[in-house]
Amino acid sequence: MGFASKQLTVVGLGLMGASLALALRGYADQIVGVDMDASARTYALENGITDRVTDDLREGVRDSDVVLMCAPVRVISRIVAGQIGAYLRSNTLLMDIGSTKRDICDVMGRLPIGIQAVGGHPMTGKEVSGIENADATLYVNRPWVLCPTRRTTPAARIRALALLEAVGAIAIEMDADRHDKVVAAISHLPYLLSVSLVATVANAAGKTPEVWDLAAGGFRDTSRLAGSDIRMMSDILSTNRQAVATLLAMFRVQLGLLETMLIAQDEEQLTEALTPLRKTRMEWSAQYEKRTHGTRR
Amino acid sequence: MGFASKQLTVVGLGLMGASLALALRGYADQIVGVDMDASARTYALENGITDRVTDDLREGVRDSDVVLMCAPVRVISRIVAGQIGAYLRSNTLLMDIGSTKRDICDVMGRLPIGIQAVGGHPMTGKEVSGIENADATLYVNRPWVLCPTRRTTPAARIRALALLEAVGAIAIEMDADRHDKVVAAISHLPYLLSVSLVATVANAAGKTPEVWDLAAGGFRDTSRLAGSDIRMMSDILSTNRQAVATLLAMFRVQLGLLETMLIAQDEEQLTEALTPLRKTRMEWSAQYEKRTHGTRR
Repeated sequence: MGFASKQLTVVGLGLMGASLALALRGYADQIVGVDMDASARTYALENGITDRVTDDLREGVRDSDVVLMCAPVRVISRIVAGQIGAYLRSNTLLMDIGSTKRDICDVMGRLPIGIQAVGGHPMTGKEVSGIENADATLYVNRPWVLCPTRRTTPAARIRALALLEAVGAIAIEMDADRHDKVVAAISHLPYLLSVSLVATVANAAGKTPEVWDLAAGGFRDTSRLAGSDIRMMSDILSTNRQAVATLLAMFRVQLGLLETMLIAQDEEQLTEALTPLRKTRMEWSAQYEKRTHGTRR
Repeated sequence: MGFASKQLTVVGLGLMGASLALALRGYADQIVGVDMDASARTYALENGITDRVTDDLREGVRDSDVVLMCAPVRVISRIVAGQIGAYLRSNTLLMDIGSTKRDICDVMGRLPIGIQAVGGHPMTGKEVSGIENADATLYVNRPWVLCPTRRTTPAARIRALALLEAVGAIAIEMDADRHDKVVAAISHLPYLLSVSLVATVANAAGKTPEVWDLAAGGFRDTSRLAGSDIRMMSDILSTNRQAVATLLAMFRVQLGLLETMLIAQDEEQLTEALTPLRKTRMEWSAQYEKRTHGTRR
């Protein structure tokens, strides 16, 4: 079954929301944009990203059969936990793109029965944000995790899968807890390592300022995530504390093992520990480059 | 004073040594290559990288006025601590490119008086190794740390600086201990973080194998160094244990501070801690891209 909507609403006209609006242009009779920011609304209208805009949530969603929540995690949680349940028509498909899923799926599960709510997290993005960078191909060939909620009927699930197919995304279904553990490992832990590395080098620079002149490609790559948007990362970390703390504990064990071998001067053991990890990294990297066809996102 | 040599010997015909030979072509009347590997010697001769090759160290260095040691750290240390002092003529300039400097500069300092020995570490490289990837421009616009030894006379220093100028490198002078602390921060610590991250994700994959499907650009960059050559990294780490252990302790403090704020749900403090680190990373990154003109090494 293909995806179709009479009126689709995107709540939050940032990079992700506006890109979804563009990607779903041919599938919805009318697209409505909701945003508190007047300049984003104007941009959306002037560039034909949406057909209509409003800053009033009720007005924006009440006649829609599909509503996509495209905002930071806690903004989505707050709106879903608030009045939106009273505004939505029965059978409306409510989806979101929040980067952590437990809180959002919890509050989605408490919406009025009849609302078809499915949590989601598309694994895509750009170095730049904002509606002016919207891109209809942002979701093509990228994984999009779908997480069931207590309001995800079989019909809701099928509609969500059809939407993903329409934007070209690869559906990966798992429950919210599992998703949050996975992203803690592959995304939130790397961010904290990257930031802590910059903090350590900045600290070392107190005694040896040459660190900044000599740092090169290795430092650049390992520290890149420290340049991520702080409000976004703070929102993500704060809604995934438990899983992040668990991963940090696991990381400390791994780092400690390597350090022990190094200090014990047990070079054979160190080499034996490093070899399979190098292989794992290279195999993953080859798969990843193949999967993304060398596009850099 | 420009750099000039009647006979220059490169000991070790890998990427670094062969690239040096190419870069110094116009400055030496004759270039000799020393390597135990017959295929590297053949390649060097057939491609005009050196004029002469040998697998005999004494034969390779005894008539030279410049000798460049281009091998792993402990191979360089072993050769310098061994017989080479007896083979070299007085006033020969002996330099090296080892990635850690304390051990090498120590043994250089015990060479016979009259040998002009200067430790060094050019901050350059490629993703690929081997003589077949040799590149005359490998050192252009890259920092090259020079470390004085007890055998670094003012004349030796001036000759070393002239050699760096000949290959286009940017000289940065500091003592060996300071160098080793700096690279522990910007290179060895990032490597260990990268490897430990891969180990942690591989561990998490036991319960949630989806980590490999969902890992994307953030994981790719943060884990890239885990793909580094293990024998090389093991050589480097093993000759810099003290400085690496110190940096690991500093890193743990920084990571612990962030984790404490996260667990304490002190988001204001977390944001205040992240903000200057993001700024530091972005300022360094802008400087680095400018300095390297966007070339990726």
